[in-house]
This record gives sequence, structure tokens and C-alpha cells, in this order.
Amino acid sequence: MNIKDFGGEFALINLIKRGIKLDKDVVLGIGDDCAVLKFDKKNYLLFTTDTIVDGDHFSLEWWKPEQIGMKAVEINSSDIYSMGGIPKHIIVALTLPDETSVEFVRDLYRGINKSCKKHKINLVGGNITHGKQLNIGIGLIGTVEKKRLCLRSCAKAGELICVTGYLGGGRAGLQLFLNRKEGKSKSHHLLPKANPGGRIISQYSRCMIDVSDGLASEVKHICEESNVGAVVYKEQIPIKKEVFSDAKKLGKDAYDFALHGGEDFQLVFTINENKINELRKRIKFSIVGEILPKKKGIFLIDKGKKYSLGSGYDHFKTRIKEKK
Amino acid sequence: MNIKDFGGEFALINLIKRGIKLDKDVVLGIGDDCAVLKFDKKNYLLFTTDTIVDGDHFSLEWWKPEQIGMKAVEINSSDIYSMGGIPKHIIVALTLPDETSVEFVRDLYRGINKSCKKHKINLVGGNITHGKQLNIGIGLIGTVEKKRLCLRSCAKAGELICVTGYLGGGRAGLQLFLNRKEGKSKSHHLLPKANPGGRIISQYSRCMIDVSDGLASEVKHICEESNVGAVVYKEQIPIKKEVFSDAKKLGKDAYDFALHGGEDFQLVFTINENKINELRKRIKFSIVGEILPKKKGIFLIDKGKKYSLGSGYDHFKTRIKEKK
Repeated sequence: MNIKDFGGEFALINLIKRGIKLDKDVVLGIGDDCAVLKFDKKNYLLFTTDTIVDGDHFSLEWWKPEQIGMKAVEINSSDIYSMGGIPKHIIVALTLPDETSVEFVRDLYRGINKSCKKHKINLVGGNITHGKQLNIGIGLIGTVEKKRLCLRSCAKAGELICVTGYLGGGRAGLQLFLNRKEGKSKSHHLLPKANPGGRIISQYSRCMIDVSDGLASEVKHICEESNVGAVVYKEQIPIKKEVFSDAKKLGKDAYDFALHGGEDFQLVFTINENKINELRKRIKFSIVGEILPKKKGIFLIDKGKKYSLGSGYDHFKTRIKEKK
Repeated sequence: MNIKDFGGEFALINLIKRGIKLDKDVVLGIGDDCAVLKFDKKNYLLFTTDTIVDGDHFSLEWWKPEQIGMKAVEINSSDIYSMGGIPKHIIVALTLPDETSVEFVRDLYRGINKSCKKHKINLVGGNITHGKQLNIGIGLIGTVEKKRLCLRSCAKAGELICVTGYLGGGRAGLQLFLNRKEGKSKSHHLLPKANPGGRIISQYSRCMIDVSDGLASEVKHICEESNVGAVVYKEQIPIKKEVFSDAKKLGKDAYDFALHGGEDFQLVFTINENKINELRKRIKFSIVGEILPKKKGIFLIDKGKKYSLGSGYDHFKTRIKEKK
């Protein structure tokens, strides 16, 4: 059976999870942004991996090697911040096609080092091999204080759903490139940024996830893992003016980009209402919905009407090849 | 400039190493089989990555998905054993082409789980994405007692150079497949095994490396990092009878496979002569040479004559495409 018909990326992950046995050093295995492992009295170790591939996660047509290197580090750091942690040590597994130049590799690593420096990450190792397609795999270790660990599974009914920054820019930018149009959103696509604000949020929230596949998908992950329902208020989703105007140029809906586009790498978290004012003093965020009891379901409210929340980006179900 | 003309994989690694700054939590960064990181009072954390790619590290023509999964885990575990450590937690970054079936992924993970079980490794996470070519990247964390850490840089003049098991089978097997001939060495190619004997060796030796690119290459790594010279006695290199007869079928020299072939995943280590007898009681190994002062150089002795040791497999300089 092909993967798409089987149910895509997430059905495959469920298949892989089955029958895995873990020893007592593992606090949490497959199923969140990072694995959580025992470390010392006060801290857990976080362990994550994310790969970017030419044609799927970037295009050599539009991307400079330095930007590709930065993206590889930023998206992995984002997974650590979304667990409330601090990224620490990175390894890079490079697969390079024959035609790759030394200058390309040098500039790629300039980007990797730039993002490592920004997030105070040590580049400690890696592996270089040959293949048909440029493929950059990252392994990242971080740490998190036990009491500040944030999981997808810790949302509680009654908590508010919040999101940092703005959404939709990542996908709007990609669509501009694919459709050969101009617009400010292009920079959101080329320069995704991990949000260290996760370190502040982890002092107030126990449930967090980063927006890699779109807000709808992330809220659904939280609901599934926390065994709760949720409502998202469409008009409260934070979207920049430039994303609205770029979406218009493309004949698309900016809210679709925010809900189902992905690659914004902002943080979605749930929080008790009485902590909102305190957190507001420290970082900027928007309230976009509320966690509900499971029986209420998961839905979107748009101008007072109830809609299904829809899904996010799936590498095996959604393929971006419009007008390319 | 292309990577081959620049000097291949190892020249590229030297370029990448330049200008990297590391903080006090890093004991050793790029340059050995694993990165060495601070962990607790008695132990270090080991961190490594290795990727296998269709067409370079395995061929879907000859390999069953289960064998591919096992290889991915074994070659990474080998990097941990060669530092004297214990493999602990693994993450898998999969890049799958469109045509990949669910059954293939299931069987691949059957192999991954089989090797994880054998080495008592927890499969704790991963990432699945889409690409043109099957690419399996592994990130592996292990631990090692501080006093049992083995490094490429710790060989001393006067120590003996030893190797576990037999060499040359990995490359002999590959050549049989490429030349469509039969022979026992095929199984060495299809079922590479990490050697947990590294845990025993680390009680007697401070310098170890695994044979991934051939004995010549590994001895040269040791010499370079330890600032020493070395002599290898060709006739003492342990090679199985079946590898000699398979090499004959192929019109090749079995010693060439052992010295320059790679993918045997046996362990090369240096040891003080007075510890040899004690270690002999616990594991099997062969003495193949001796560490010399740097000024003596690095060479091979064959029937009393001195030769250059030559190089190992390089993914950008050596490409295996004979008679395919």
C-alpha cells in the first residue's frame, strides 16, 4: 500500500510506534517535538531530529546556501524551545550530490554556524556522504528543567490557546516563489526563526508545540495527546497585513495559510487565564481559542458559525507543486 | 571547486572544523567517531550520526528492507563501541521516495528494532519526510565512563596495533554483488555488525576506532590525531579463507579489500604489550602492527619490504560502479 492511501506521515508514525519497548531512562519516546530522557536531578535531556531536502523544504532556485544552513538549525531549535528547553549540541548529517561545490558547503556551514551562535549551540559533529539529492539532517540535544517541561499532552479544558508572533507568512512566501510573484512574505519563507520565547512561556505553561504544519494541525495534535477538545476563533489568528495582501495577489485566503500552511515556527501554547497578564509583561502573544472538554469536539468559529478545523501540511498527502 | 578536487570528504571536514567555537560542556567536538559531552561525575555523553543512502551504502536490488534497517543501527552503534561506550537512545530521520510502500517502512523498522533490541538501544524519536532517494539518517546518544573513553588521539609509540575479528569481507561481498558472482562474503556485506567487544577493550586500551573505510584509513586517522607513526604487517591482517577465495573469483587481492575497502565495522585499537595476555582471555583479536614515533612515518611491511599504506574509501573520491 502506498503511504498516502495509508493515511500519510502521521499514520506511518503510529505504525512505527507500535510495539516499541523503552527502558527506565526514557521519560517520553516518539510522539512529541522531542524525546525526553533522564539527565540529572533537576533537568531532562531533550533529543530531536529534523531533515530538510532540496525540492521539499527549500529550493536551490531561490535559496542561498547560507539560508538553507540557517533553516536546518532554526527548525530543530524550534522543537527544543517548544518543549520549554534550551538547545545545546548539534550534529549535521549531510548528503551531497556530485555537483556540489566546496563553496556551497562553506556557505551552508556559514549559515549553520550563524544560527548556532545565535542560539548558543555547539556544533559537535556530523557525517558527510554522497547522494542524488541535497539532504541536510540535524540531530539536536537540549536540556530542560523538569518543572518547565512542556508537552503536547498537558493541555487542560478551560485553558486558553495562545500563539506567539504572526502566522501564515511561511506559506504565503512559498506560494509567491512558486507563482513567481513579488511580496514581503518571501522573507518569512526564506528566514524561518526559532522562537527562544519558549523559555519564558515554559515558566507559565505546561503545554506547547511549534507551528511546523499549520495552526490547525498543531491544535489537533494537542487535543489528541491531551484527550481534550478545542475551539479556535478564526478572526483572532494573528496575521500580518503583508500576508493578507500577498494572499490576495495569489487569489488565496491568508487564514488558510495560517491554519494549514505551516513552517511559521511560532509557538502555540495553552495557559490558565489567571497567568495571562503576568506573561503579557514578558512576551507578545495572541489568544486564539480555548481548550474544551473532549466531548465538545475540535472546531473553528468564523463570524459566529462553527466549522471543522481541517488538517495541516503532510509530506505525503500535501505536495506543493502548483505552477512550478 | 568540486569536492573531489578539493581533497574529498576529509578535506571538507577540515574546512568545516575551522573557526568553530565550543563551550565548556563539550569535551571533544568534530574529529572522532563521536562527540564527547559532559554528563555526570563519572560518565560522558557520546553523540554521533551516520546516514545510509540508496545506491551508496546499500542497493535496493540486493538488500531486504529489514537488513537496511539493521545496517543503519549497527554502523552507528559501532561508533559508540569504538569510543568504549554503551549505545543508549536512537532517533531515525527517514527520507522516503514517493513509491515507498507501507510494507517497506514496516520491514525497515523491523530491522531497526531488531538491532536496537540486540544492543539495548531505545528508539525514542525521528522524522519522516519525502525526497527523491531513500535516505536513512540516525542520531545516536551513548554514555561512557570517563576513565574508559577511547580516542583516536591517544595512541602512544611502542603500543601494539590490534584488530578484532576479520577484515575485507564487507568489500568482498559488495564486489560479488556488483559483479553478479556468488560467494560467502555476500553475507558480510548484507549483515554488518557492531562489535560490543569495544566495552571490554575500553578496560585495557585508550585508543580505538572502527573500520568503516578500511584498515589503512583507520590507522592513518590514529596516526594523524595521535601525532605518531605506524607500521602494519600485511601478512598479519586477519582475513577469512572465504574472503581470499571470493577475492580470487573477482581477480582482486583480499588484502586490498581489508586495507582499503571498508565497512567491516571491526575495532582497531592500540594497547601496551603487557596487557595483551589479559585481554586475550576475554576477547579474540589479532596484532597487526605497532605504533612508532612520528618521524618513522606510516608504512606497510609485505614480505620484508616497505610500502606506503595507501588510503581508504572516500565517498567523494572512490565511487563503486565497477561492472554495474
